[in-house]
Amino acid sequence: MPGYLTLPQDEFKGRVSRLQDNMNAAGLGGVLLLQNTDRYYFTGTLQSGFVVIPAEGAPLVAIRKDCERAKAESAWPVTKLASTRGLAHLVRETLGELPSPLGMEYDVLPVKQAMMMEKLFDGAEFADASHALMQTRAIKSEAEVDAIRIACEQVDRAVSMVAGIVKPGMTERELSARIEYELRMVGHGGRIGMRGFNQWIFYGHILSGSGGGEPSGFDMPTSGKGSSPLLSQGASDKVIEMGEALTVDIMGSNGGYLCDQTRLFSLGELGEPLKGAFEAAVAIEEEVAAIARPGVPASKLYEKAVELAEATPYGDNFLGDGAKVSFVGHGLGLEVDEYPFLARGFKMPLEEGMVFALEPKFIFKGIGAVGIEDTYVVRTDGAEQLTTSPKQLVTIG
Amino acid sequence: MPGYLTLPQDEFKGRVSRLQDNMNAAGLGGVLLLQNTDRYYFTGTLQSGFVVIPAEGAPLVAIRKDCERAKAESAWPVTKLASTRGLAHLVRETLGELPSPLGMEYDVLPVKQAMMMEKLFDGAEFADASHALMQTRAIKSEAEVDAIRIACEQVDRAVSMVAGIVKPGMTERELSARIEYELRMVGHGGRIGMRGFNQWIFYGHILSGSGGGEPSGFDMPTSGKGSSPLLSQGASDKVIEMGEALTVDIMGSNGGYLCDQTRLFSLGELGEPLKGAFEAAVAIEEEVAAIARPGVPASKLYEKAVELAEATPYGDNFLGDGAKVSFVGHGLGLEVDEYPFLARGFKMPLEEGMVFALEPKFIFKGIGAVGIEDTYVVRTDGAEQLTTSPKQLVTIG
Repeated sequence: MPGYLTLPQDEFKGRVSRLQDNMNAAGLGGVLLLQNTDRYYFTGTLQSGFVVIPAEGAPLVAIRKDCERAKAESAWPVTKLASTRGLAHLVRETLGELPSPLGMEYDVLPVKQAMMMEKLFDGAEFADASHALMQTRAIKSEAEVDAIRIACEQVDRAVSMVAGIVKPGMTERELSARIEYELRMVGHGGRIGMRGFNQWIFYGHILSGSGGGEPSGFDMPTSGKGSSPLLSQGASDKVIEMGEALTVDIMGSNGGYLCDQTRLFSLGELGEPLKGAFEAAVAIEEEVAAIARPGVPASKLYEKAVELAEATPYGDNFLGDGAKVSFVGHGLGLEVDEYPFLARGFKMPLEEGMVFALEPKFIFKGIGAVGIEDTYVVRTDGAEQLTTSPKQLVTIG
Repeated sequence: MPGYLTLPQDEFKGRVSRLQDNMNAAGLGGVLLLQNTDRYYFTGTLQSGFVVIPAEGAPLVAIRKDCERAKAESAWPVTKLASTRGLAHLVRETLGELPSPLGMEYDVLPVKQAMMMEKLFDGAEFADASHALMQTRAIKSEAEVDAIRIACEQVDRAVSMVAGIVKPGMTERELSARIEYELRMVGHGGRIGMRGFNQWIFYGHILSGSGGGEPSGFDMPTSGKGSSPLLSQGASDKVIEMGEALTVDIMGSNGGYLCDQTRLFSLGELGEPLKGAFEAAVAIEEEVAAIARPGVPASKLYEKAVELAEATPYGDNFLGDGAKVSFVGHGLGLEVDEYPFLARGFKMPLEEGMVFALEPKFIFKGIGAVGIEDTYVVRTDGAEQLTTSPKQLVTIG
């Protein structure tokens, strides 16, 4: 399963073409991309530099370092850029004129970099291209779906070993370390990309008992205590105890292509309300996934999930105990937080090829978290599940 | 060794006081902090919200989520912020007036967040606070140095096992997975913080033979091929072969406090030029570390390293083969890329309490990378080495 993931060159041409449609709809004359992941997405190379995509025609890929590697990787011709100062001249020379307005990645671009670009392109009109970029990235090709399937296999392999690994006295962190090791051995790329400011995640969350109910400032339904007030999410040194809910919420990464899956375990029998709430989560996932199809607003999936949860005895605990997150899932691909957000108010209609994780979860402060999560791709006639692990609660010992 | 790292509350008071000195020197009336790591550094909590530090007096810590966790963690009183819209009113109410100019983290703050703040604080004068923040964070307390020492122990434990783990036929990724596992088992926090835009790293780099010479767009002397053009650094599926240089460049993390260390191994005897270049790197590290003391410009260490490397037969390969990085080391603490940069043109004088990694490395494209790296703290009379692994080349088998 391990290897070095590359995609067909045609892939990148289709992406640029779709972005150009979205740029035209948004009234952008072009985009100037600086962020690593965006530049990779449209060119095939992450090497350091700048990508300018006009509303029509081929992108300019200007690379500072490493130019040879970029040439081997890029789907478009690569121009060596000796110094950033030469960028404005190069753009005008290559594209004839500076695209206007020129969209930038306002959602991820630091102010300092934006100011540098404003100075370089003195007098140019800039605009926010975030939405057009996110729209484009939301639709996955079959090559991308296939890449994600391999990430799903990684996660299934690791999860299938959990029951054999967990021993009384083991800590969350020890189990997490073992799972991470299994993931890496089957080819997991390590780093998990997140786009949102201040959002980060390390593989996912292995949480037991009260650890599952630990709140945090991250925009996630569960967090955990982590290893310090800084690294304030994920596994801690808490010992996994008998009868607790043990959540294994992990992401696979195949060369950066992600999947997200949550499964539930317990050492010995799980009591109420956790057992009932878990069964409710499984039912909610199934019913919500069943309404996902092209044309349905993403927010509708959130609303449906909340409606279903409120009809159970555990409604107050859905997506948080006290402070709640306002989403029941999220798009994912090269980053964990892509379009579509299955969130309150996010009315964008689902489209064929969108990939999302659906994660109905119930949180009981001081007791634990239970829930389930799977990754799906939207097809013409419904949602196809990509994650593959069996959905039942696994009771160990 | 594992655990949950907390620092004494006094620590955070000293940090704010030093920032206020640096703010006054920079002519800032206050700073408005949004980035996770900065907010944690000055308050003790990473919980979601805003921190305003005026040039005099106590900070305002306004928390949206999770307020209870923030109250338990913060060294300063915490105010619950129901909605971001209420921030400007809260600041004026608490501090009497809006500090002016108000510094923001232009090096890490996305344009979108900055625009939101400009709208909220309509008419306010903003300025860049990056330098004052970086200056403040560069000086480590003894509590921080002690935290880093534990990260150094993690790395030493993992490195001491390498000779027993490496087998012929093993891939870089498999060895990396084992090292990562050992690190996690002794308490490594996982995520490695980086401040620079587009910079990221996952534990470090395990590179063998030609893998050590793989260039990338990241601002690092070595990179490796990684697992895709996106995850284009670190271990790949390359098999570790006899006679190759095997670099183990890894970071420890104790609750987020980092150390950085590189050691060299080989399966069987290492040939020339790698062996000679490694010995040169060790000698360069020793001579450069010997001149580090308060008052010496950080750039002087870079210049000294280059001067020494150019006097060896391997000068052309120092810090890159072809494209070179222009630094021989970097400050580190909660992020890998803190002040001081031991870099061309970075004339900031070293001060007592600064922590830096010094990494003289030689890169031979197609053949491999050799070098060494240790983490030091600047003391009144010189640099104290914090990383502890023996510095000799370890020949396996």
